[in-house]
Amino acid sequence: MKLEDLKFTTEEEVMFFDTDCGGVVHNIAYLRMIETCRTKLAGEMGMDLITMSKTRLFPVVVRTEIDYKLPARLGDHLEIHGHVSEIAKVKFWCEFTLVRKGETRPLIKCRQALALVQMPEGKPQRLPDEWKEFIVD
Amino acid sequence: MKLEDLKFTTEEEVMFFDTDCGGVVHNIAYLRMIETCRTKLAGEMGMDLITMSKTRLFPVVVRTEIDYKLPARLGDHLEIHGHVSEIAKVKFWCEFTLVRKGETRPLIKCRQALALVQMPEGKPQRLPDEWKEFIVD
Amino acid sequence: MKLEDLKFTTEEEVMFFDTDCGGVVHNIAYLRMIETCRTKLAGEMGMDLITMSKTRLFPVVVRTEIDYKLPARLGDHLEIHGHVSEIAKVKFWCEFTLVRKGETRPLIKCRQALALVQMPEGKPQRLPDEWKEFIVD
Amino acid sequence: MKLEDLKFTTEEEVMFFDTDCGGVVHNIAYLRMIETCRTKLAGEMGMDLITMSKTRLFPVVVRTEIDYKLPARLGDHLEIHGHVSEIAKVKFWCEFTLVRKGETRPLIKCRQALALVQMPEGKPQRLPDEWKEFIVD
Repeated sequence: MKLEDLKFTTEEEVMFFDTDCGGVVHNIAYLRMIETCRTKLAGEMGMDLITMSKTRLFPVVVRTEIDYKLPARLGDHLEIHGHVSEIAKVKFWCEFTLVRKGETRPLIKCRQALALVQMPEGKPQRLPDEWKEFIVD
Repeated sequence: MKLEDLKFTTEEEVMFFDTDCGGVVHNIAYLRMIETCRTKLAGEMGMDLITMSKTRLFPVVVRTEIDYKLPARLGDHLEIHGHVSEIAKVKFWCEFTLVRKGETRPLIKCRQALALVQMPEGKPQRLPDEWKEFIVD
Repeated sequence: MKLEDLKFTTEEEVMFFDTDCGGVVHNIAYLRMIETCRTKLAGEMGMDLITMSKTRLFPVVVRTEIDYKLPARLGDHLEIHGHVSEIAKVKFWCEFTLVRKGETRPLIKCRQALALVQMPEGKPQRLPDEWKEFIVD
Repeated sequence: MKLEDLKFTTEEEVMFFDTDCGGVVHNIAYLRMIETCRTKLAGEMGMDLITMSKTRLFPVVVRTEIDYKLPARLGDHLEIHGHVSEIAKVKFWCEFTLVRKGETRPLIKCRQALALVQMPEGKPQRLPDEWKEFIVD
């Protein structure tokens, strides 16, 4: 498997609770949609939620960069395309593009850096050996 | 169509953002899951989100009763079964049962009363004529 | 101290993230405001958050009833008045009224039943002995 | 008034709804705390919520960068220090540092770029003339 195979697409329909009185999706709501995509992506990498809740070894967001390009609205059907873009020694980066279903124009672009953290101590761990084949720096 | 045909089932996988530091799903998160089910149920009744955002005639929650019976946890696959239980002149009731997928034991039971409200004035409207066949009081 | 002294008032200013595209506060957002009031009220009863996170004995909501009477809007200054209304053997009830600051007309009325639960086992405990003086049934 | 005077500090106490089952504050919850600070900061710049909801001219987040350095926990008393760091022709930047009350070590650092957008058309506007004195590029 190659780095570019570590990808996942999720779908969302914009609900009332996603919007604000500006008439569009609230900026924070997109991050919930991105977390759902990221969680499924982590599952592809062997870190499913059930395993995590037992081992308490969690991928923790250490940095988010998000660009709000165009607004989504109530009832929009959205796709969130996520992929792993870089794996280093103690953190890895994921990238997300949010589009209206069937369109290619990005509404939202987002990059997140994650570390594997052993809870509840909060100690960051080295990324797993089996990820070594992906390590690019 | 009969009242008992007005039903919808949605599925959710419990994400980190749904949980709290008690280790279980936070009581407020279930109401977001219920809203998603209710919105799909409203779609079955002819009130889809796109139409609503144009007409600005919205089904508004006027009362919620919710019983928290058993907790859901990170990674649980949940089903939310919703149905319309009563249609009166100016409000209607929906009922929701949340279970773990493949189980029947309810984790959450919820009833919500809704009114149709014309926004932004906030004026409640009579329920539509085509719902008359369902009116039971 | 008497039961009617177990009360607390919190204040909120309605933010964008509290509202939805209907132009008013979203029904779920009020429950976050009520939780803040309830948490302060619990502090009055000797259950502050720091103690709870150590003992992992948490007051858990087992039922919510909430009536949405009038909508709040962006920028509104709100007061949430909470009090304990009943203490039984294994659960107690709190009541909340949400008003615009300086007004008495309730926008929201809410009752919640709580139990003390030992986490992570999820076992409900008898209410503390020192609450006996309040026990009314 | 100088650019460095455009600042505001808000306080938060970490509630259950802010945390997740990792035992710490969820990454998305900090953005709600930052929005509250940013909204008060906007008030300092003449953009209070009541005026905004009338004119429907809103400061809209166009980019967020946030670094999660150290976790906050249930019951922590937090301070969010916000200030305007740059005002350009069509967007301005705010910076936020989140600390435990009485400490200086940052838990969270965040920068946000905002544009003034006329809703519901979504058209970005030039920043107001009275901000000219602050314009640095």
